[in-house]
Amino acid sequence: MTDWAGDAKNASTDGEFVRDARYISDRIVASVPAGSGPQPMPGTDGRVGELLWPAEPGRYRLMAARACPWAHRAVIVRRLMGLEDAFSLSLAAPTHDVRSWNYAGVYPDGLDPVLKIPRLQDAYFARIPDYPRGITVPAMAEIVSGKVVTNDFDQMTIDFIREWGPYQRAGAPDLYPDELVDEIESVNELIYPKINNGVYKCGFAGSQEAYDKAYRELWEALDVITDRLSDRRYLVSDHLTLADIRLFTTLVRFDPVYHGHFKCNRSKITEIPVLWGYLRDLFQTPGFGDTVDFVQIKQHYYIVHTDINPTKIVPLGPDLSGLLTPHGREALGGTPFGDGTAPGPVRPDEQPTAGHNPLYPA
Amino acid sequence: MTDWAGDAKNASTDGEFVRDARYISDRIVASVPAGSGPQPMPGTDGRVGELLWPAEPGRYRLMAARACPWAHRAVIVRRLMGLEDAFSLSLAAPTHDVRSWNYAGVYPDGLDPVLKIPRLQDAYFARIPDYPRGITVPAMAEIVSGKVVTNDFDQMTIDFIREWGPYQRAGAPDLYPDELVDEIESVNELIYPKINNGVYKCGFAGSQEAYDKAYRELWEALDVITDRLSDRRYLVSDHLTLADIRLFTTLVRFDPVYHGHFKCNRSKITEIPVLWGYLRDLFQTPGFGDTVDFVQIKQHYYIVHTDINPTKIVPLGPDLSGLLTPHGREALGGTPFGDGTAPGPVRPDEQPTAGHNPLYPA
Repeated sequence: MTDWAGDAKNASTDGEFVRDARYISDRIVASVPAGSGPQPMPGTDGRVGELLWPAEPGRYRLMAARACPWAHRAVIVRRLMGLEDAFSLSLAAPTHDVRSWNYAGVYPDGLDPVLKIPRLQDAYFARIPDYPRGITVPAMAEIVSGKVVTNDFDQMTIDFIREWGPYQRAGAPDLYPDELVDEIESVNELIYPKINNGVYKCGFAGSQEAYDKAYRELWEALDVITDRLSDRRYLVSDHLTLADIRLFTTLVRFDPVYHGHFKCNRSKITEIPVLWGYLRDLFQTPGFGDTVDFVQIKQHYYIVHTDINPTKIVPLGPDLSGLLTPHGREALGGTPFGDGTAPGPVRPDEQPTAGHNPLYPA
Repeated sequence: MTDWAGDAKNASTDGEFVRDARYISDRIVASVPAGSGPQPMPGTDGRVGELLWPAEPGRYRLMAARACPWAHRAVIVRRLMGLEDAFSLSLAAPTHDVRSWNYAGVYPDGLDPVLKIPRLQDAYFARIPDYPRGITVPAMAEIVSGKVVTNDFDQMTIDFIREWGPYQRAGAPDLYPDELVDEIESVNELIYPKINNGVYKCGFAGSQEAYDKAYRELWEALDVITDRLSDRRYLVSDHLTLADIRLFTTLVRFDPVYHGHFKCNRSKITEIPVLWGYLRDLFQTPGFGDTVDFVQIKQHYYIVHTDINPTKIVPLGPDLSGLLTPHGREALGGTPFGDGTAPGPVRPDEQPTAGHNPLYPA
């Protein structure tokens, strides 16, 4: 998911930021046999966005970027479910050129080493020539055809959890159990518009009024979530669920980026004991903090968004060493992975750069 | 003192912000008899900047602005010394038009009610037609001629303390005692370039390298000051001195403005127990917090500096209510005013706007 497609596309007439939420919404599922081509979703004509593709190891590549909170969710779910061998991971550079995400400086010759393309847009154009919307991460691309199959960041994570069962690691947790789906999605009705997207509404507001409204909604929602997390370790049930992953990728960017760059500055997360404890707890849980690259996160937002940071200067702060301090949240009960287990160490080739994360000192 | 005269004037070739520190440096002193015209400083030709004017009640007007940290020093010293009846106070609006500080929306018809001018520049031009440098606050203007006498923000405060003795209130503290001058100025050699002006060097850096250097110097200096204040209540001696006033006007703006807007974001002051205690101690001392207008401060920086905040959107945060919480610094010993006393309440016509400061609730 791109962060910003600019004023013309994403600002309503009253200055409010509106996210373009139309995706290539094909799905990759267990019910289509491996080796098959895509099948129309029942009751559809099977146009783009109406196709089902088989969950088949080695067929796809997850195209992500460390910087992006929406892609970060997919990276975390892939790691928690142990799907590293099922589909590979491509990481775009933190900053854009005018043609959006690319691989300059990341891979030799600036080409994705598997898809052999210099820019994410090439996989979009392979699927839909003259693709008219934002070039976004995360996207799943079919390797042999080089085409984007889906860029629906939310459905993608649900399908990683539910449709790839045979290829998941032993001990993979159930992050989206049937009996909790209603509660997970109910929490999301607050967190997505007011927090995950709410920080963008603050930062990209086209008027003081639109900013003021987004700021108030953001902090009302954070207060509700703080209250909810004051006596329970996780958002839904006694274990981690997709709800926590959705919140984490915003919270971990909050103090380094959203607080200053997006003016979400009633306080830092470090100043809210409940959320600060929750963030540290998750950060220290395998699969969360070990997927974070703070340098790339800051570079992305501060260099790409020239409309709000024309100097492109990237702040050196904040000091993030506190993320590794004891959080004491174990006392609330619950266990991160329920009947499952923690994932093992991050594969060496997928570790964040040393010095870009307090877990990986320079 | 203006905050920023723009890149062309204030950026060196390597992107470092350089403050124009050439002032109209006449002085107002006790040694010239009231009623006299200005006298040449000994050994000079008596050109502009080489004149001594008499410290004479009713003759001058202090032209300031709530927003500006340099003007804020003069406002605090005037109040601590009880000079309200000696010279009146003019407060410019928080935001500029292209001709700098003005009185739009502050006084009836947008005119300073005493000098009858719409803009601060008019008092500069009355003194020096086509005055070529920044139009800055604070300035002392002679009311009858409408001319700026001095805009030397630093000497001005020293002269308020030392040259207006007969007109100061009973109990006025000595903020610049002879025996402490060396130490006060020695501390200033760190605080002025690295902190007071250092935050501007961070915010107005023209390159990442210039920013990185300014940021490191700022935090090294803040660490030294934190250390110094860890076991002593005030910077120099057991009582308030000009050194504390110089530091206060930067510290009180730090979390609301410099942290985010100028990217001085290793941490907030609220996250540094020693400095946070010191800031609260001063804020709660008569003469300090009661001269602050946070709304005007934020409006000034975020609206005037369109080169770094082109949207002109003013953040609603941070929450500043913590400024009134107990600070515990009394335990370090010392008393704010030494042999002197605290000033009485702020005159009603000089109080910050209700709702713009936690001491003056809406």
